[in-house]
Amino acid sequence: MGKNPVEGYNGIFINPRFFVRPGVRMEVVKNALGRDVPVELNGERLRPFSGERKKRERSKLVPSLEEAIRRVGLKSGMTISFHHQLRDGDRVINMVLDTCSRLGIRDLRLAQTALFPVNEPVIEHIKNGVVSRIEGSINGPVGDFLSRNPEALSHPVILRSHGRRGAAIREGELKIDVAFIAASQSDDRGNCNGIWGDSAFGPIVYSLPDSIYADRVVVVSDEIDKYPLDCQDITENRVDVVAQVDSIGDPDKIVSGTTKITDNPMRLKIAEDAVDLVDAVGLVRDGLGFQSGAGGMSLAATKFLGDRLAEKGAVADFAIGGTTKFLFDIFENGNVRRLYFGQAFDRASIDFARTHPMGQGWWVLDIPHYADSTSKGRAVDNLDLVFLGATEVDVDFNVNVNTHSDGRLLHGIGGHQDTADGAFLTIILTPVRRKNNPIIRDRVTTVTTPGFAVDAVVTDRGMAINPRRKDLLEKVSGKDLPLVSIEELRDIAYDETGGPAPLEVDRTSPVALVHWLDGTVLDTVWKVV
Amino acid sequence: MGKNPVEGYNGIFINPRFFVRPGVRMEVVKNALGRDVPVELNGERLRPFSGERKKRERSKLVPSLEEAIRRVGLKSGMTISFHHQLRDGDRVINMVLDTCSRLGIRDLRLAQTALFPVNEPVIEHIKNGVVSRIEGSINGPVGDFLSRNPEALSHPVILRSHGRRGAAIREGELKIDVAFIAASQSDDRGNCNGIWGDSAFGPIVYSLPDSIYADRVVVVSDEIDKYPLDCQDITENRVDVVAQVDSIGDPDKIVSGTTKITDNPMRLKIAEDAVDLVDAVGLVRDGLGFQSGAGGMSLAATKFLGDRLAEKGAVADFAIGGTTKFLFDIFENGNVRRLYFGQAFDRASIDFARTHPMGQGWWVLDIPHYADSTSKGRAVDNLDLVFLGATEVDVDFNVNVNTHSDGRLLHGIGGHQDTADGAFLTIILTPVRRKNNPIIRDRVTTVTTPGFAVDAVVTDRGMAINPRRKDLLEKVSGKDLPLVSIEELRDIAYDETGGPAPLEVDRTSPVALVHWLDGTVLDTVWKVV
Repeated sequence: MGKNPVEGYNGIFINPRFFVRPGVRMEVVKNALGRDVPVELNGERLRPFSGERKKRERSKLVPSLEEAIRRVGLKSGMTISFHHQLRDGDRVINMVLDTCSRLGIRDLRLAQTALFPVNEPVIEHIKNGVVSRIEGSINGPVGDFLSRNPEALSHPVILRSHGRRGAAIREGELKIDVAFIAASQSDDRGNCNGIWGDSAFGPIVYSLPDSIYADRVVVVSDEIDKYPLDCQDITENRVDVVAQVDSIGDPDKIVSGTTKITDNPMRLKIAEDAVDLVDAVGLVRDGLGFQSGAGGMSLAATKFLGDRLAEKGAVADFAIGGTTKFLFDIFENGNVRRLYFGQAFDRASIDFARTHPMGQGWWVLDIPHYADSTSKGRAVDNLDLVFLGATEVDVDFNVNVNTHSDGRLLHGIGGHQDTADGAFLTIILTPVRRKNNPIIRDRVTTVTTPGFAVDAVVTDRGMAINPRRKDLLEKVSGKDLPLVSIEELRDIAYDETGGPAPLEVDRTSPVALVHWLDGTVLDTVWKVV
Repeated sequence: MGKNPVEGYNGIFINPRFFVRPGVRMEVVKNALGRDVPVELNGERLRPFSGERKKRERSKLVPSLEEAIRRVGLKSGMTISFHHQLRDGDRVINMVLDTCSRLGIRDLRLAQTALFPVNEPVIEHIKNGVVSRIEGSINGPVGDFLSRNPEALSHPVILRSHGRRGAAIREGELKIDVAFIAASQSDDRGNCNGIWGDSAFGPIVYSLPDSIYADRVVVVSDEIDKYPLDCQDITENRVDVVAQVDSIGDPDKIVSGTTKITDNPMRLKIAEDAVDLVDAVGLVRDGLGFQSGAGGMSLAATKFLGDRLAEKGAVADFAIGGTTKFLFDIFENGNVRRLYFGQAFDRASIDFARTHPMGQGWWVLDIPHYADSTSKGRAVDNLDLVFLGATEVDVDFNVNVNTHSDGRLLHGIGGHQDTADGAFLTIILTPVRRKNNPIIRDRVTTVTTPGFAVDAVVTDRGMAINPRRKDLLEKVSGKDLPLVSIEELRDIAYDETGGPAPLEVDRTSPVALVHWLDGTVLDTVWKVV
């Protein structure tokens, strides 16, 4: 054995020896260190040590997206992913696509968690061939464009819920070549978070599956701090390159300065009635687990639920955020014990995460834990209650949140399917009509969440409980609630609007496929003509 | 479409329709909701939605290990895993094996991270056929037994470092059927930690790969608290069953009440000299990253390093624990910015984790992040310095920590390979001899860490720098250090002891294989005769 243990090793193992004792048959060779080791043991092949490996550079920092794209070998035809936590302030998706375009990379499959109006430039990248497929939510202008021009992509858009996206990545149905992960703070080795830094957007929860299963991972950040960061939503062992950019987003648009409750009396009434229903069912009690969205009506329902818990002196076990000031108010008031922190919707959420230590009343809820229905148990399975919205609800309690009644694909699924499927009581809050469009109707334009996962619909003209929930019907029987049948709500909506306008779509030309939690296809969104 | 959306669906999709437009060829059917969806699209098969799934019970709690074992379907021939963080206070491994034995389950492969003296009953389970293979560290009596009776197992023991074990699990080389994860606190859905509860042992870091990749995961806990736990080292989405037991371990033996620095002057001198070497190389400076073990000499070196940093007013960037009071002293004194929290060695570690919020000066370091060399970057790659021990060192700087010089396998690899391979400066602290046994010698009994990963050996009779580290030799040139060659240290050791006793082993009968970080075989441990 030489001074350098690799010296003297030339790939040929000398003097193989064969031994047999009861239970062991092996072939022994000398490895690169001159030690006797088996290369075969009871039929199993083993690899003898063959020498030292090359060390890596510690820093993974590169000064541009262009350099990052080169380093990870991003090529035409690949799949790239992003999270949407920078919301309408996002600069990362547009910057990456611009850079790809400049580098001549084409035919990409985009696997973002969502697009926002700020991502309108994606339309140009579709037109010029940089993007040829999309699997992810396409809120706003891109959805509008594709609703009229589905042939601009080679394949329909695939829409998945937050949880299903995580499962599809884990199962290999959605294979990501390069994940770009926006971080408001990162060290030069890729430990990063979304809580600190000028472009803070809340803990990075959506990119966890991407960080685990993507071939290559690029952290994109505008604040590089000393190794190791104090707070690490994503850790260096999953990061190939850290790209420093001037700005990942517009802080004013990443999170709202404040989130506002609706001041529309009709909508406030719906929220109040929804909480009355929760109360009548007996859920305003110690131990409740609940979630609520960030729309004006949902925020109002959250606030009213907090008030009701306080009136009764009840303490909920947990709430899952989409976090807002209204959730923190309930927490500070002592009416909920624990917060699961997902997406951050307002400035108060960032402040909360910075001033309240994780593990003391709150914990980060990553997407697989939140909502992967193929996992061993999702947080949403523990929800007693979720308040959700709808663009349409039909008499089978099917809910549409993806398309407008004219067929245009303007919204993603988000956690709608996940929470509706998981919660004991799923309440949809919606007016029976919006202007001249009946929201409660015979048949939704698109099924986002099937009726079996929807338990009640609370409207400005009464509330309907899904007949399959006989347990709920028993509980509310005799209570002072404006109970009606779903068909009555439809009739009111039709009477007041003259019924649904005809849907003008081309049923030979699919815009998007709506997947269910098990990966099956729930519905097709068709071209608007 | 009926009220129940599954009604009317009998597995036959009616009226398949075929469409072709430029770029899209599809076959459309009506799914279980009566919606038009493609079953084939451009040659890709899609699954139409086919109905509701059954809901799971929320609670995964069972009152015994027996029930847990039944639930997960543990059978003869399977592989089961455990972490060793309960150390010599562990009751979980023995309880699980006793239960398996009682249930008639045999021929198990044990894939623990380590066994301690408390796990001596494993020997009986080997003898009676409950355990037939072991992949994991077997510190103490089980190692002693197998060194003399390797034929009691069907296959040699596989020894891997902490990092390599994680990699082998991730790569599928070590497939775990059922992971048992001891937790000092859990909720009934499997969110759990090791920081709270009477049997606290520090954050659960070793079982992370097991929790991700094992087919089935059982959390074993003696403190079940309300859902959701505040602190979640392992989360419910990875847990099948929670088994409640009376006690997971003996708190007095799980962590030492206190960890003590050596009071042997010779060993104190070695520690002091090692810190002199670190200083001479220029590493006692702002930005240092270091790790140190929990042995008496390593603790002394940690303390002296802290003193030296304080003298110079230098602030290290981070330290990786194996946490002890001595590390927290440096932290509280302001001479290290951040602590990466791995295994907890003393009561002070538990107190620290409870009183210092995670994310404020410390972060949990799970095993893949710590040490998986097949990942995109391990924390140990960022170490400037590690202090390590040895049972033997040879003139090629190869280090043995597994076997004693009589050939008995008494220790695991731990993080020895990982940190030595990762750190810029790996210093081995050891006396040249222990009683009549020369520690510095021509050839180690077993290679645990190859010489290329070892930079210096500091002994009571001088320090030797690995000649391949010319950069270090230049830096210390002219400094007041007791520099000698490794051969001189060997000569001293041989002179004072009369040289190594002959090793009496049977080189046809392997006890264990020592794997290197890349999965190759470094060395074989042979039967002691």
